[in-house]
Parts: sequence; structure tokens; C-alpha cells
Amino acid sequence: MSDGLSPQKTRGMTETIRISLDVMGGDNGATTVLEGADIALVRYPDIRYVLYGDKDTVLPMLENFPRVKQASTFHHTDVTIEMDERPSQALRRGRGKSSMWQAIEATKTEEADVCVSAGNTGALMAMSKFCLRTMANIERPAIAAMWPTMRGESIVLDVGATIGADAQQLIDFAMMGGAMARALLDIERPTVGLLNIGEEDVKGLDEVKEAGRLMREFELPKLDYQGFVEGDDLGRGTVDVVVTEGFAGNIALKTAEGTAKQLAEYLRSAMSRTLMAKIGYMFARSAFQRLKEKMDPRKVNGGVFLGLNGLVIKSHGGTDGEGFAAAIVLGHNMVKNGLTDKLEQDLSVYHKNRMPTDEENAS
Amino acid sequence: MSDGLSPQKTRGMTETIRISLDVMGGDNGATTVLEGADIALVRYPDIRYVLYGDKDTVLPMLENFPRVKQASTFHHTDVTIEMDERPSQALRRGRGKSSMWQAIEATKTEEADVCVSAGNTGALMAMSKFCLRTMANIERPAIAAMWPTMRGESIVLDVGATIGADAQQLIDFAMMGGAMARALLDIERPTVGLLNIGEEDVKGLDEVKEAGRLMREFELPKLDYQGFVEGDDLGRGTVDVVVTEGFAGNIALKTAEGTAKQLAEYLRSAMSRTLMAKIGYMFARSAFQRLKEKMDPRKVNGGVFLGLNGLVIKSHGGTDGEGFAAAIVLGHNMVKNGLTDKLEQDLSVYHKNRMPTDEENAS
Repeated sequence: MSDGLSPQKTRGMTETIRISLDVMGGDNGATTVLEGADIALVRYPDIRYVLYGDKDTVLPMLENFPRVKQASTFHHTDVTIEMDERPSQALRRGRGKSSMWQAIEATKTEEADVCVSAGNTGALMAMSKFCLRTMANIERPAIAAMWPTMRGESIVLDVGATIGADAQQLIDFAMMGGAMARALLDIERPTVGLLNIGEEDVKGLDEVKEAGRLMREFELPKLDYQGFVEGDDLGRGTVDVVVTEGFAGNIALKTAEGTAKQLAEYLRSAMSRTLMAKIGYMFARSAFQRLKEKMDPRKVNGGVFLGLNGLVIKSHGGTDGEGFAAAIVLGHNMVKNGLTDKLEQDLSVYHKNRMPTDEENAS
Repeated sequence: MSDGLSPQKTRGMTETIRISLDVMGGDNGATTVLEGADIALVRYPDIRYVLYGDKDTVLPMLENFPRVKQASTFHHTDVTIEMDERPSQALRRGRGKSSMWQAIEATKTEEADVCVSAGNTGALMAMSKFCLRTMANIERPAIAAMWPTMRGESIVLDVGATIGADAQQLIDFAMMGGAMARALLDIERPTVGLLNIGEEDVKGLDEVKEAGRLMREFELPKLDYQGFVEGDDLGRGTVDVVVTEGFAGNIALKTAEGTAKQLAEYLRSAMSRTLMAKIGYMFARSAFQRLKEKMDPRKVNGGVFLGLNGLVIKSHGGTDGEGFAAAIVLGHNMVKNGLTDKLEQDLSVYHKNRMPTDEENAS
């Protein structure tokens, strides 16, 4: 390889991908998790599960999913984190002994390659940070989302791990998002944009402007920095990776979800209002079906925690089996494509050579 | 009236609404502005225009719009602000003598009740602030947008006037949005939410949390504070007024616009893919037409600058006559319903009685 790095580790075709599941997490209970595990397993028979949950709940249910049972090892846990528990309380009560904690910890002890949970987001992030710690050179983790666009899919981060980010953290997010794009979207040199208000260099948040300046001056390895993007560039798919701090990112994500629901409701209501519309709907049924699949939020379920010493994926709490399966498949593909190795390599190359930020220059 | 205030000024049915137009503003030239003026005038014959623009451009065009010509006074201006000009440069070059400046100034000299421009947003805001100054008790203006929701319409502010806002400014935005809801949506006591990430009181930006605490403790006149809302509450129409600082608000607005375009494109593509879909489309044509009208972004065109000593409305730069007419109609309705008086009354009552913020207590 021309960059002098050792060739990337890629897993052999026969190797299994080990996924730890917090079976107790989510609004819809353990059945949804096991249903999802079953669906994902049919698609990817190379998956092996490590299950964490209450034995009295999980073991009887597992009898209904013989394929999952066959492909799993089970560990009993005493504590279940509630969906509305505060992160600090969850950490106190669930550290060490909850299904959530142990599913996370399995990625640290290398019993699992990736952890998937539909539990309480705040608790999952707090426990993941506490248990796994951030990677060398990374100050803060980010949550990355796959965003369906007119062109295909983009990666958007941070969508809610932390509020605010300085220039250096935004650049780290760009690196992490870039590694994820190379692993999942199979793009050699992903395009990256910084989310801002207005495209001119004069506008927007100071941190965003400084990150932009640094990314222009210091070419990032394997990233093609394209400048600022705006909210409407997200759906357009202008760049492969959109970088933002977590407050605006979370609001953008939820606004898009809400708008999609709103328009689906408009469409449903328009198509059921008159007899002619209903007849039209009958004819165009398969087209509507395609559209429905395309807009299905379950398909892009899964927020990826990046920047920790272990891979954790947050599934929507309220999803069904199909949605949970999508989160598992996302985890499977990330491990299969060596995301963590790609990320570590990129970060170490970058941080060896990077230029100081204004703040660092000042101190 | 029980609150001891003088009765609100309401305009008589025979009185005219005077609207100043920056005829040179926008991507599509003066024709679009005059087309919009004509459409709005047909709907509301009580409108009178004060037009500002280059005489060589505007006067010949005006011959094609005899109704508008009849209802207007025209003022020649030498300078036209470019769409990509920096605000500071626009202010230097166009202060006093541009069509944009003079259209704004007309609301100060009381030649007009409201100003509408499709010109450069940054320049329009900079000139408006410089020319009109903020209202007593208001530190910063906001841009408010009408947001179509599943329930009807909400008001969202700030969608991009300034980045960041402290607790007191967020409360001012709530008051201004509330007055706008009472004037335009005809709601006696509008519900208000603060845009945040997560509904629990522990999450989110400090300024937002403090604003929430103050709004709970000190009941705002004529506002029903409902707590935090999230991005997906925007499309749902959970509250009548959504308050946020301008960075997140602008990103939310543009993300929703982008998502709507994306889904319209999905729908168009699904309906033209197969013969059956095309036949279905023929049958359901009028339903699709309704849907198209419902999703038409031109209908909700117009960002309202609130908090200045004069009403200014920013139309989308790239809109057509129909869209520009919507911005004019918005201005017409705000004046007709006495927005400015409502706003001044609310603010003066509130600031007479309000509690100090943490920051003010500290100093």
C-alpha cells in the first residue's frame, strides 16, 4: 500500500460476526429484540449472538426462536434499565450488572464485535462512555446516523451524543464519519461537508468556520472536504458525510423524521378522500408499496456510537422486529468491513501530522 | 378590558394597507415582484403599494400591470443590492439610496405599514436593524416562519436572524411568536414550546433550560407554555409557537424543506415508473393536485422580521409571482390584525413585571 500502512485487516468469509444484544432494552420488550435477531440471522447466517437479559423473561421466549437459540450464548442479568431512567441513575443502578452494561462490556472483553441495544439512549451513551472510554486522540464520542437521500445514503454525525463541539472535535467527527462511509458505503474518498447556515465563508458558528478553515488548509487523509452545507443538502445528498455538533444534528434528524411522517399522512389522506382517488390507489398499488418501502424509517434504524473503544449501536426504542434487524445488520456490516481498524488508522495518521487549532496556538 | 390596557387599535374595513416593495430584490427580477403584487391586489383590493426601484427597469414593466400601477406610488432608486453581496458591503453601498433601504425606511417614516423584499437575506436583516432599530426591551430581532403542520400552521422562530440566544432572548422570542399567533392564527392564548433535544427537564442547552424554568415560574401573559418540544413536534404541530435560537432553527427549516422536496421526488418517480402506476395517477389526479397544493412551499413563503420598529418580510429569493404574493398577503394580514400593537402591549406588560434571569441576579 502506498501510504505505508499495513494492509487492512479484513475478515475471512468463514469467520463469524459476534453481536451482543441487550435483550431487555426497548419499548416493545424482549420479543421484538429476538424477532429482529431472527430476521437478521436469516439474512446473515455468519452472525453469532451473545444475549444479556433476565432468564425468566428471555429463556421461555427463546424457545420460539430456535434459530436464534442455536446461534446464541445466553447470560442472565439481574437489572433492567428503564426507558425513562436518568443516565446518572442508570449508571449507579446498572453498572456491572444490567443487561445493557454487560452487552456493552462484551465488546470490551472481546466476547462480541459489536453491541446493539434499543434501550434508553442517554443511559446507553453514559454506560458506553464509562465502560469503553474514548479512543486515543478522541475527546468525545458522536452518534452517527445513516440518512436516506435522493442520491442514496449519507452519514450524518453527531445526531445527539453531546451538545456543542469545538473545531478539533468537528474534524474528529469528519474523520470518523469518513471511515464509516468507506466501510459502509464503499466510497474510497468520501466527500464531507460542515452543516452551517449559509454557504459563504463569513456566516455561521465560529467553531464551524474554524473547522472549515483547518480542513481546507490541511488536507485530511482520504477525505474530500467540500465546504459548508445547509439543512436542505441533507435530503439532497450533496455530500457523503455531514458533520455537525449534536444539538443541531439531533434537531435536524428529528425534523426530517417528523416531516416524512407528516407528508405520508397527507398522502394517505389525499388517496382515501374520493372514489376516484381510491381507484387510482388500487392501480398504483405496487408503486405506493415501493414508495412506502423507500420511506420506511425502520430500514435506516440504528445510531452508531463512534469514537469509543468498542462499537455500540442504538436502535430506536419503539421499533419492531424488522427495524431491530436493520440495526443488527448495520452492526454486522460495519464489523465485516473493518470499520474500527479503518478508523484507528485514519485517526493515528491524522493526529500525528495535524496542525494546531487557534485555541491550542493561544495556550 | 380586564387587563387595564387601552383597547387594541383595529383598522376600519375601509382603511388601506400600505405595503412598500423592494422591486429590485430577488433572483427572478422585477417582473416576479410586480406579478406577485398583482395577484395579492386582486385578493385584497385594500392594498396600496409604495414601489422602490430603478425607473428604467420598473416603469416600462409597470405598464403590463395596470392594476398595480393604479394602486401604487413609485420612487426611483439608484442602487440595487446584489443577491450575493455581503451584508456589510450592502450596508455601505446601499444605505440611504438602495431600493432595499428605502423600502425598509418607508415603514419608519410611516409611508408604509409593512415592507416586503425578496432580496439578499443578510443585507435585508442588516439594513432593517440599522434603519429601524430594535423595539424597546428587545435586544435582538428574530425571523419567524409559518410552518405547515398536521394540525394546521405553527410559528417557528428564530429561523436565522442570529446565532445563539440567552434565556431572556428566548423568552422575548416566545412573546413575539405569541403575538404573531394571536394576530395570524386567531388563537387567544397560543401554546408555546422550547425546541430542545429530549423532553425531560435535565437535557439540552443551558439557556433553553433556564428559559423553560423562568417560563414555568412566571406565567407569561396570554401564553400557554408547554415545555420542551423536539424536532419531530414541528411537523406534528404539537404547539402553536416553537421557540429556538437561529442556528438550530435555520437548520430545522431547511431540513424540512429538503425532506419535502426529496419525498415529492420519490412520489413523482414512483408514479411514473410503470403503466399501472401511470393509470392510477390519472384516476387520482385531483387527489395528487390537492396534495401538491398542500405541499406547495410558495404558499407559506415569507420570513417575518420581529422585534424591530417596523415590519419587514423576507420572501424567498427564488420564488415566483404566486410565492411573492403569499409574502405580501402575510404582511397584509399582520397589519390588518394589528400585530405590532399586540406585540408592543405584550412586551411592555411583561417587562414591567418580569423576574430577573440568573445572569442578572449575579451582576
